[in-house]
Amino acid sequence: MSETRAAKVIARCRELARLSDVAGETTRLFLSPATLDAHTLLLWWMRSAGLETRTDDSGSLHGVRRASVPNAPTFVMFSHIDTVPNAGAFDGPLGVMLALGVVEELGDAPLPFHIEIVAFSEEEGVRFHFPFLSSLAATGQLTEEHLARKDDNGVTLAEALCGFGLHPEKIAETCAFPAKTFAALEVHIEQGPVLESEDLSLAVVDSIIGQSRLELTFEGHANHAGTTPMSLRQDALVAASQWIVEVSAYASGYKQLVATVGSLKISPGAVNVVPGSVTATLDVRHPKDESRHAAVANLLTKAEAAAAKYGVRVKASLKSEQRSVPMDLGLTTDLQRAAERAGYTADAMFSGAGHDSMIVAPHVPTTMLFLRSPGGLSHHPDEDVREQDVEAALATVLEFVCEKAARSE
Amino acid sequence: MSETRAAKVIARCRELARLSDVAGETTRLFLSPATLDAHTLLLWWMRSAGLETRTDDSGSLHGVRRASVPNAPTFVMFSHIDTVPNAGAFDGPLGVMLALGVVEELGDAPLPFHIEIVAFSEEEGVRFHFPFLSSLAATGQLTEEHLARKDDNGVTLAEALCGFGLHPEKIAETCAFPAKTFAALEVHIEQGPVLESEDLSLAVVDSIIGQSRLELTFEGHANHAGTTPMSLRQDALVAASQWIVEVSAYASGYKQLVATVGSLKISPGAVNVVPGSVTATLDVRHPKDESRHAAVANLLTKAEAAAAKYGVRVKASLKSEQRSVPMDLGLTTDLQRAAERAGYTADAMFSGAGHDSMIVAPHVPTTMLFLRSPGGLSHHPDEDVREQDVEAALATVLEFVCEKAARSE
Repeated sequence: MSETRAAKVIARCRELARLSDVAGETTRLFLSPATLDAHTLLLWWMRSAGLETRTDDSGSLHGVRRASVPNAPTFVMFSHIDTVPNAGAFDGPLGVMLALGVVEELGDAPLPFHIEIVAFSEEEGVRFHFPFLSSLAATGQLTEEHLARKDDNGVTLAEALCGFGLHPEKIAETCAFPAKTFAALEVHIEQGPVLESEDLSLAVVDSIIGQSRLELTFEGHANHAGTTPMSLRQDALVAASQWIVEVSAYASGYKQLVATVGSLKISPGAVNVVPGSVTATLDVRHPKDESRHAAVANLLTKAEAAAAKYGVRVKASLKSEQRSVPMDLGLTTDLQRAAERAGYTADAMFSGAGHDSMIVAPHVPTTMLFLRSPGGLSHHPDEDVREQDVEAALATVLEFVCEKAARSE
Repeated sequence: MSETRAAKVIARCRELARLSDVAGETTRLFLSPATLDAHTLLLWWMRSAGLETRTDDSGSLHGVRRASVPNAPTFVMFSHIDTVPNAGAFDGPLGVMLALGVVEELGDAPLPFHIEIVAFSEEEGVRFHFPFLSSLAATGQLTEEHLARKDDNGVTLAEALCGFGLHPEKIAETCAFPAKTFAALEVHIEQGPVLESEDLSLAVVDSIIGQSRLELTFEGHANHAGTTPMSLRQDALVAASQWIVEVSAYASGYKQLVATVGSLKISPGAVNVVPGSVTATLDVRHPKDESRHAAVANLLTKAEAAAAKYGVRVKASLKSEQRSVPMDLGLTTDLQRAAERAGYTADAMFSGAGHDSMIVAPHVPTTMLFLRSPGGLSHHPDEDVREQDVEAALATVLEFVCEKAARSE
């Protein structure tokens, strides 16, 4: 039995995962030796599929399937090929390999638009401690400040690009998506447990969630754990704990809200001392910015109440905030219908993680397709996809392309 | 106006606090250069008060006021003169200086018993990471294993004693309290807020609290804080928090029980990751061992329930356990009555902290007198005592001594 088209997509992801800066795992940092190897392999696959290829000056690979008509618009399919340290094979590469599978499946069929596959080389932000550098370049948002950022060895982004044979001064010219791009699509694994819990292969993404990060400090009084009766304590950890339970309960009451206390600093933090001070992180996400703001306000009120209950003070500071980014409604609906025609259910969901689509969407009509993540696992060597889900995604994108072609004729 | 006897006790504590191994603070470690200075000063004060002085082979100072009769028994007053790093002036030294104040006040009055002041040089356990070495020596419990313990510079206790001009092999012979010791008394600051909250100067101590230390690990599942809906989480920190609130509420329901979660280790402990694992310390103390055991059992049951509620597992391990040590009931009652006759209220309370009395009590009839700690503060440069409370303690101990003298005549 010959290899299915879905199996081929998966096999290519796993082949790419062997190219690593660290032996025995998959770690592929921006403009590293393993990235050069990945470019070589990917350019080979793109050319074998009949695409015109080039590397732009931010280090992204482009593979173009030409339209059958002059002055045609472009449909872009993008994702990234860099990884976090000790990564899996699919977070990023799947979107590029699936796009490649789509153009291979289309063969020589004439289309009234170009299809351009863009493989971004930097999304995770590991090397320069800053994510989305490739998509910022593609949308004209990469600044001198970004180019001056240094990696852990003191090498600037501009120097790293030059060392890779690229020309940072030409980024604006060579990195932009074609002017007549009418749609951009990113196919990605969900990186969460929702599709698996609903036993579905696919979802369309209608927005990338907004996010607030705060730090709360509960200030009580450190005391001897043996000599201080319970009634005379101002235990900062008990107050913080009361609040953490309430954060979980509150967020559980709203379907699209997530709120997480991921880290605590406890002072003095000794077994025999009543905690005097606790600093907690708070991460709140919701697809609607107003709902997120309301949740943050409510959680701060709850912190005040929990602190007051235990004779403790609390102060909060906002560390960062990121607005929700909607995907293009028309494209998202088209993608959902394409899935239906292909025989699949693709409910709309929000993405709780950030993606290049967040950077691209304000500039080009953009949508995303999510594939089920077995075990909800991601950023881990055991990250996986199911062949049946990859087939569902291939069929959906092909339907989407054919419908766009039919409509524009 | 001349200095009161209480002011003199306080002034001596403050004078001793100037002798430090670290300039600008009070840090006096066992057998250190500052300890040698402290011995010199204290021996001078003892001799000026007419006491026979000697240093025993564990480094404790003894000052004896001779009885007016032959073959007399001995009343011992002890406390320690070593300190924690960056300590206050009273935790330890107050008991020695107060004893000195008592013998000065007694002047030449004939007594039917000796009074022996013992200044232990090692109670806190800082240098050899092991407390109560002096009182262990005084009660014949210092073993070869203790003598082989090393400080942070690799110096054994035996070597340190020899370096100080002492003879470890003579410890059994020179360190023991006199055979006919009929009572031992330790005067100490409370190191807690109870007396201050009740606006009292003094308390007698009827027991030193027993203690259990445990470690509990809540094992959930680490997940992406953006992509994991609340309903699909197994958040170890939320489960641990639920339990911490319950620990506080449970202990608050029992007057003599204290329970403290002083430290948490959270893994992975990142702002954007649902905590997968939390390890918590638990410190439980109660003057009755059976009550402490019952409390520990109940708190473990509550941990199981909190874990189950959030789909998390919990395992607990007992790290250390210390039985409650009762003070001598007769002596404690005598001390309480002496306070009454002197015009003070001295309710019985338990000590939530460990003291040399815990080591001495099983061997010699022993009791303790606590003085109010302003602000409940201890192990801190701002540690203090009030002159009126020191006067109350002096008057009480003098009454106690006079009553013992009258009774034995």
